[in-house]
Amino acid sequence: MNLKLLLTGNELMTGDTLDSNSAMIAKMCLDSGIQVHYKATVSDDLDQLVSEILRLSASSDVLIVNGGLGPTTDDLTAEALALAMGVELEKHPLAIQHLVDWCAKRNYALSEANKKQAILPKGVELVANANGSAVGFKIKLNDCVIFCTPGVPHELKTMMAQEILPQMSAFLPNSHQPKRVRFRVFGYGESNLQELITQTYPDWPEQLELGFRASMPLLELKLKVDRLQDHGLLNEWQARIEKLVGAHIVTHDNRSIAKVVVDLLAQKNKTVTFAESCTGGKIASLLTEVSGSSKVFEAGFVSYSNTIKTRVLGVEEKDLNEHGAVSEAVVRQMLSGALKLSGADVGVSVSGIAGPNGGSDDKPVGTVWLAWGSAISMQARAFYFPGNRIFFQQIVSALALDLIRRDLLGLADIPIYFKERKAPS
Amino acid sequence: MNLKLLLTGNELMTGDTLDSNSAMIAKMCLDSGIQVHYKATVSDDLDQLVSEILRLSASSDVLIVNGGLGPTTDDLTAEALALAMGVELEKHPLAIQHLVDWCAKRNYALSEANKKQAILPKGVELVANANGSAVGFKIKLNDCVIFCTPGVPHELKTMMAQEILPQMSAFLPNSHQPKRVRFRVFGYGESNLQELITQTYPDWPEQLELGFRASMPLLELKLKVDRLQDHGLLNEWQARIEKLVGAHIVTHDNRSIAKVVVDLLAQKNKTVTFAESCTGGKIASLLTEVSGSSKVFEAGFVSYSNTIKTRVLGVEEKDLNEHGAVSEAVVRQMLSGALKLSGADVGVSVSGIAGPNGGSDDKPVGTVWLAWGSAISMQARAFYFPGNRIFFQQIVSALALDLIRRDLLGLADIPIYFKERKAPS
Repeated sequence: MNLKLLLTGNELMTGDTLDSNSAMIAKMCLDSGIQVHYKATVSDDLDQLVSEILRLSASSDVLIVNGGLGPTTDDLTAEALALAMGVELEKHPLAIQHLVDWCAKRNYALSEANKKQAILPKGVELVANANGSAVGFKIKLNDCVIFCTPGVPHELKTMMAQEILPQMSAFLPNSHQPKRVRFRVFGYGESNLQELITQTYPDWPEQLELGFRASMPLLELKLKVDRLQDHGLLNEWQARIEKLVGAHIVTHDNRSIAKVVVDLLAQKNKTVTFAESCTGGKIASLLTEVSGSSKVFEAGFVSYSNTIKTRVLGVEEKDLNEHGAVSEAVVRQMLSGALKLSGADVGVSVSGIAGPNGGSDDKPVGTVWLAWGSAISMQARAFYFPGNRIFFQQIVSALALDLIRRDLLGLADIPIYFKERKAPS
Repeated sequence: MNLKLLLTGNELMTGDTLDSNSAMIAKMCLDSGIQVHYKATVSDDLDQLVSEILRLSASSDVLIVNGGLGPTTDDLTAEALALAMGVELEKHPLAIQHLVDWCAKRNYALSEANKKQAILPKGVELVANANGSAVGFKIKLNDCVIFCTPGVPHELKTMMAQEILPQMSAFLPNSHQPKRVRFRVFGYGESNLQELITQTYPDWPEQLELGFRASMPLLELKLKVDRLQDHGLLNEWQARIEKLVGAHIVTHDNRSIAKVVVDLLAQKNKTVTFAESCTGGKIASLLTEVSGSSKVFEAGFVSYSNTIKTRVLGVEEKDLNEHGAVSEAVVRQMLSGALKLSGADVGVSVSGIAGPNGGSDDKPVGTVWLAWGSAISMQARAFYFPGNRIFFQQIVSALALDLIRRDLLGLADIPIYFKERKAPS
């Protein structure tokens, strides 16, 4: 089925409003196995609306027009549709009834402006709006069914679920049953992962769609088939890809890496602490954004200066002088101090050079040492993430959370970033 | 000037990603006096891309194509443009150079997938990408200038500001000389501020455009005129609005509130510390995102549990038991402890109930106590921000930074949020 969307509204064109309606329509349709093929967005401009209705209806099976059903002068959808159809506008008796009932229920007076919402192109059929005064309507033009829908999101949502999706699904052949799976991956960039998959499986099956979506700091990988007969193939390839990407897969749902770590800690009945230098509190902040994190997190320390590293966390001054703040000795002592002070079971400490200043030949901007684990089983390693400061802090914070995740899961295999993000030596 | 946008990406079509790029482009263009006339959105589909490039370029002066410049197989913009132009794809030597430099700077190997980003339609001119590996490019087709731009928002933003807007502005007539001023305000919501202005100035001049943009946690207020002869009027009204909004104006440029605080601290040669409970490190994280913050910030403490409040910050156990963790006595002692441990001149401490759990009749979710200032001049106050957890943490962190800003500036007037966000008593 070829489904297209036509969105109307000056606020969409100026950028004052983000278009979330079309994303909602697309997701609801996809869940019913129907794909949106094209979206056009125009201002509240009668000529543009008429010509787009004509153009898009000529090349699609279903056209959903969204917006422009309100009572004000810049709501032009009914007028544009009448012009496109070459029919008159007239008072629609059922639409008037809907307005009268709507106002009566709420004790509103029916205003002249509101009455405009019942003046519709001759011949349309109503589409019920359970949540608002503006009725939806539909009609066939150029062999295309046109649905005109309200711009208010919760009105649109109910109308899609209760009216439009059931009507559209009736048009679908039985064989069309899309299915998709998603993985959220940490450690691979989009091009690396694409290359890995292409090289490992040069004979990728045509029916299987492979997609990526960067969702910093995670990368989402998607596998999709369209037909019922390919569901087995999807399962088979899902297993292959899971094996290939391995422990880099953080989750199969849409949890953040922080949420995954909070859930793991809760499940294992453990608490965590952080001693952060260059990430400046970001790791703790990401974790505590998760509701329920207070059960697994008691304390964090942001030790930006050397003084505080020694005074609060108990780092030896001689090690700071001898090895510098960005060193294995210092991150190990930072973590030991944080574990002792907080009484947490596991933790991460971080010390690095976020930039843009503070780098040296020996330790350029982007160098960072991390220690992670528990008092009796602690690991430490240096990494290198040159780039801008915000990117550095984001990626290092995610890395810290991933190292805790791997530690909690007791994962044996070496993550790819141990090889690719080594600090220069 | 007739400007159209063509957006490409499967994630835009499936609704997985909200299209924020087109809103950003539209706003940046409007600020330069250029309006977007039309937007089309297609999936990563070669045929659709080619036909839309041909169709849209035939009816516009400028066409901005966004997305599809990446290294993966679903990035098709270059190929589509070549087909639309009827030219070959070829390695562009300057684009190769950009990629080689980009990777060298970051110590990456240049992958085969990456090299694809330098294979461009014959005859294009490069458009510099200061922030990413994908170069932009432009060419003339059907008397329309086509700019192909990256989908990554911060790359797009810089390319628009540094390259595309200056080039487009050169096409505009001389009389058209828009000028605008912006203020970034903390403490007012959009409708409150709109009401304040409308009620104070019912006779607002028609030539002067008043605009708002929510830029959480700040609200941006914009004044704009389009013609040279109205520049004086703009100056006059700028002074009026500055007087009306007063110390709620955080900055006249696009600095964040954290950057404003870092700059103020540096200017006054002072250091700051934070003792955070419910904000979980977010205040420290916001401050340390600012480059140069290490000069004004030495240490922060995330004291989620009561144990750590007493053990590290020295809060009296009897006060915790008597008044609870969310109380004036506790935030004052948290701040005293943090100031003492860090040696900082000023600071903020925070203890509250972020939710969704943990509230009581007495102290519902959204209640928060803050203490701010120095050891010898400390203030404390309770506020109330019901809503979701992330919103609560964002707004409380911004409030903490604003209170430090006001403290550093020695501002006498009472901010509006002292009245509007009082905790229930």
